[in-house]
Amino acid sequence: MKTVTFHGIVSARLTINKYLQPTPLRYYHELSERLGFEAYIKHENHLPTRSFKVRGGINFMYNLPVEQKKQGVVTATRGNHGQSIAYAAAQFGVNATIVVPYGNNPEKNSAMKAFGAELIEYGNDFDEARELCDKLQAERGLYYIHPCMEPALVHGVGTYSLEIFENLPNVNTIIVPIGGGSGVCGAITVAKAINPNVKIIGVQAENAPAVYRSWKAGRHIETDSCNTIADGLATRVPFPIPFSIISEGIDDIVLVSEDEIKKGIISSLRYTHNLAEGAGVAALAAAFKLSDKLAGQNVAMIMTGGNIDLDTLKEVLINT
Amino acid sequence: MKTVTFHGIVSARLTINKYLQPTPLRYYHELSERLGFEAYIKHENHLPTRSFKVRGGINFMYNLPVEQKKQGVVTATRGNHGQSIAYAAAQFGVNATIVVPYGNNPEKNSAMKAFGAELIEYGNDFDEARELCDKLQAERGLYYIHPCMEPALVHGVGTYSLEIFENLPNVNTIIVPIGGGSGVCGAITVAKAINPNVKIIGVQAENAPAVYRSWKAGRHIETDSCNTIADGLATRVPFPIPFSIISEGIDDIVLVSEDEIKKGIISSLRYTHNLAEGAGVAALAAAFKLSDKLAGQNVAMIMTGGNIDLDTLKEVLINT
Repeated sequence: MKTVTFHGIVSARLTINKYLQPTPLRYYHELSERLGFEAYIKHENHLPTRSFKVRGGINFMYNLPVEQKKQGVVTATRGNHGQSIAYAAAQFGVNATIVVPYGNNPEKNSAMKAFGAELIEYGNDFDEARELCDKLQAERGLYYIHPCMEPALVHGVGTYSLEIFENLPNVNTIIVPIGGGSGVCGAITVAKAINPNVKIIGVQAENAPAVYRSWKAGRHIETDSCNTIADGLATRVPFPIPFSIISEGIDDIVLVSEDEIKKGIISSLRYTHNLAEGAGVAALAAAFKLSDKLAGQNVAMIMTGGNIDLDTLKEVLINT
Repeated sequence: MKTVTFHGIVSARLTINKYLQPTPLRYYHELSERLGFEAYIKHENHLPTRSFKVRGGINFMYNLPVEQKKQGVVTATRGNHGQSIAYAAAQFGVNATIVVPYGNNPEKNSAMKAFGAELIEYGNDFDEARELCDKLQAERGLYYIHPCMEPALVHGVGTYSLEIFENLPNVNTIIVPIGGGSGVCGAITVAKAINPNVKIIGVQAENAPAVYRSWKAGRHIETDSCNTIADGLATRVPFPIPFSIISEGIDDIVLVSEDEIKKGIISSLRYTHNLAEGAGVAALAAAFKLSDKLAGQNVAMIMTGGNIDLDTLKEVLINT
């Protein structure tokens, strides 16, 4: 089985730095006063696709063998992973086919097309969309990029955690949202190698707690639904590679409610003046619940992405 | 009289790069399709104070003589200039006193205090607040930093235009909001030195058109009021140094209405997923009026800042 290693993340760093600028880790004074600890936010929403995933896409595409680059790639997505692959493919002149389920958010679809990917709508959910990927892999020789089972993606994504340690060597805790789990695996791997005393806290949505429940139970548990405003957290299934790393290395997983996520979106606007999507504020939402536990610490929270559509934003601002 | 030079901007670059990361110049595909030209946005809202002004603050403070650094500085502001001076002063261990008029936006006041500045509320508007600066300069030996008459500020701010030419050597037009005028003076000076064929278009608010009117008339004209949602554009008075550079070098100045500014805030959220303040979208708002004129060009628009407060944002989203 392909594995995730600290060496893989360090190597990815060299690649990533050619294509992406490090993202800022900003200290927020007023937020720190509210939270009772030193609050730093890692602005992955400042990346070109406005999501941390592009780090993985770039690293994957860079390392794809030339012959496969010529054949092209395919993946299934509801949003940020697809933008990452579309963007990275364009950088390397690779043809990318992206499968999205019917009724997928049109703003996200047009963003993927904007980066030059071929978009196919198929299936009623993410899992049905994935079936078409298998078919296209077989028929057209496209490489199927699984969003959570490619170590090259985790290695790329892991570079944000390296940047945190360089900018804030005295970090005590890193809070990371968990959807598929690539981000938190990077954080765990980096912390273990650089300073195992640093705590890694994961965050899931109460409405999409597959990884949380599996972690608690010590075995693979799927959920029937994953209906959350934070679509970056909307997974029903824990994947083997991330799950084994999470099981071994995570210090805690916190669940946040839909209301807490919405309040997080507003807190982000108020205290940081950044537009963040639901998953992007999950760490901030969790931070408000962890005030006592983290008192006085240096805490880095990952703002994973900023791709919230206007209607959702309006709804949140008016009704929260 | 102290003057603004291209050499001053190039020198500032060396300084700025020690303290600030270059900001991204992002291409937006969907926005480009709407506008009919290649639309690039320079994200000055990604800077630590979320405004381009901090480039000037850093360059000014770096070059301040040691003796004056010990005495401290004073300035008057309603927002972004004050945050810039407060932030830069903190970087260099300089005491900063910031005078704001009574009733100034509390979110902006607390941001300035957050960077460690001493905040004094005085006077009914910006001009009255400035009078106290003169007094503090005389009494306490503080250096009074005029927001629009210090070449070191313009030189620092000018570095964003250098970055544009490096990232997009084939830029045809740069659109820049005009408040005090430091940003546009940097752009004019850089374009003249690197490629005089590049057009510089300024933007003012219909409700605060002092520079526009003065430019049209060829003489100094003040306005009685400057009541605009874009507080970064709210000046009643053109200042001598910027005005002479604008008079000589600007290609056009466009006025935008309050409604166009509000729609610009929404367009920024929709097409770029960035939270921008009124002045921060003035270039984008003007772009929608310049579609025909700029057809097919490479156009860079400066998103000058992101410091919009939550109540204003809500009001814009609900009523526009």
